Amino acid sequence: MDITAYLKQKKKSIDRRLDELLPPESEFPPIIHQAMRYSVFAGGKRLRPILAITACQAVGGEEMFALDAGCALELIHTYSLIHDDLPALDNDDLRRGKPASHKVFGDGIAILAGDALLTMGFKLLSQSLIIRPPYKQGLQIIIEVAEAVGSKGMIGGQVMDLQSEGKKVDLKTISYIHKSKAAALITISAKLGGMLGNASEDKLKMLTEYGRKVGLAFQIIDDILDVEGSDEKLGKIVGKDIESLKATYPGVIGMAQSKKIASELIKEAIDELKPLGNPALPLAEVARFILIRQS
Amino acid sequence: MDITAYLKQKKKSIDRRLDELLPPESEFPPIIHQAMRYSVFAGGKRLRPILAITACQAVGGEEMFALDAGCALELIHTYSLIHDDLPALDNDDLRRGKPASHKVFGDGIAILAGDALLTMGFKLLSQSLIIRPPYKQGLQIIIEVAEAVGSKGMIGGQVMDLQSEGKKVDLKTISYIHKSKAAALITISAKLGGMLGNASEDKLKMLTEYGRKVGLAFQIIDDILDVEGSDEKLGKIVGKDIESLKATYPGVIGMAQSKKIASELIKEAIDELKPLGNPALPLAEVARFILIRQS
Repeated sequence: MDITAYLKQKKKSIDRRLDELLPPESEFPPIIHQAMRYSVFAGGKRLRPILAITACQAVGGEEMFALDAGCALELIHTYSLIHDDLPALDNDDLRRGKPASHKVFGDGIAILAGDALLTMGFKLLSQSLIIRPPYKQGLQIIIEVAEAVGSKGMIGGQVMDLQSEGKKVDLKTISYIHKSKAAALITISAKLGGMLGNASEDKLKMLTEYGRKVGLAFQIIDDILDVEGSDEKLGKIVGKDIESLKATYPGVIGMAQSKKIASELIKEAIDELKPLGNPALPLAEVARFILIRQS
Repeated sequence: MDITAYLKQKKKSIDRRLDELLPPESEFPPIIHQAMRYSVFAGGKRLRPILAITACQAVGGEEMFALDAGCALELIHTYSLIHDDLPALDNDDLRRGKPASHKVFGDGIAILAGDALLTMGFKLLSQSLIIRPPYKQGLQIIIEVAEAVGSKGMIGGQVMDLQSEGKKVDLKTISYIHKSKAAALITISAKLGGMLGNASEDKLKMLTEYGRKVGLAFQIIDDILDVEGSDEKLGKIVGKDIESLKATYPGVIGMAQSKKIASELIKEAIDELKPLGNPALPLAEVARFILIRQS
């Protein structure tokens, strides 16, 4: 299977659907809809909707069962990036090589664009779940997504990231931040796909475990790419400028160990899928791709 | 009926329930849960949950059918206040006589506390709707709440408010801001109460119209209190300092006309309830209270 072609094709369906779903830029008040679209279409691999769709197909569901719910997760992910980049939080001027929302629209509109994407995420999630029963499961999915991205999930991770700035953090803290900040939403992406594909209890557990491992690996690899993507050599950074790494795995346990853990997690995630057989092969390929990705 | 006692008793049930529902301050990470609780318990009339409960009872439902969903609306309302007060938006240091969230916790945690309350609002809404069928109606309620507070609702109003700063605004703009910024959530509060009380289509329309009129009146009265609560006399403000009123009804159409419109809207709202008979009397009293309130 050609994973690059697979990911490209899925991204294309997702981007087309996001374009259909988001209000046009001209919709009143235009500035907020421009800002929402700016960040959603500023790049991005669409990993969360791809995981939702691929997990859904791994248990016999169809792409369209999970497409809109996956897009809802992408909107929620985009809101979190806009708010993270604000001067009051991570203070990043660039996102995916483009000026961050607040650099283009100002802090006020950036805050509101994030709020609007989060709100639209929940609206779209409900809209995608009202189409097909069981509706009770639909409400359950909304609860689980809200938990994954709430004060004990993604937002909790962002809080600890903010509080760790300029401090030396230990492995427990960095592990909490990563599990909450990125892995929680990635885990629910895979699980939600399974739920929408009517997975059995057993299969749902496997997909959830897969999501948990892939999610943590994803964030560790992000840390690794941050270091290796820079001009500086690893030794120099670890040796003398560990503070600037903030809360990252290589900063806390070193580069070699970080790579080893990421690679083991991906292997374990793929092992989780074995009982699902052939339909889960693309999901295994997505995990492998996450390990070897360069951006 | 003693409306003051009625409101006080409802507020007490709502506050008790909010206290049960919000994570304790010690819950990890503590700072975010402290910030969430700080703003939720910094005062407030609990108008939105009161409207939800009172509308539910007006069509024969019980308080407990709408209590948790009403609390969810209060969390969403509180998030909107925290974000509105930020320096990048309205830049208010005080809220309900106490330091705003960002003055106590800093801008970063205030942004995240708002995000967390919005997210918990949707979680709590789903949790309150998964208890009793029809579940499909539950998903519909989530869609309507998200629309009311989204980019074409409450957030849209906040966007236009931000964009109107320092500019002369016309009646069309101020009316849009008020309808979106406050009235949308107040309207859905009354409607949601009706839905949870299993109101017929006809009754639901009446409650929605009631909510729309009360919501707009509420915001106009807020504007009026802002002026009359200050030391300055009206004539002076309207005559020479109209800019500082920003986007308010008295600033655009004058104080006398604003009072007239508010009073008419409340009268019309009460008229909407007539076909509902005696069970809707408390809802009429709530509308009357909104007109005569002093804070």
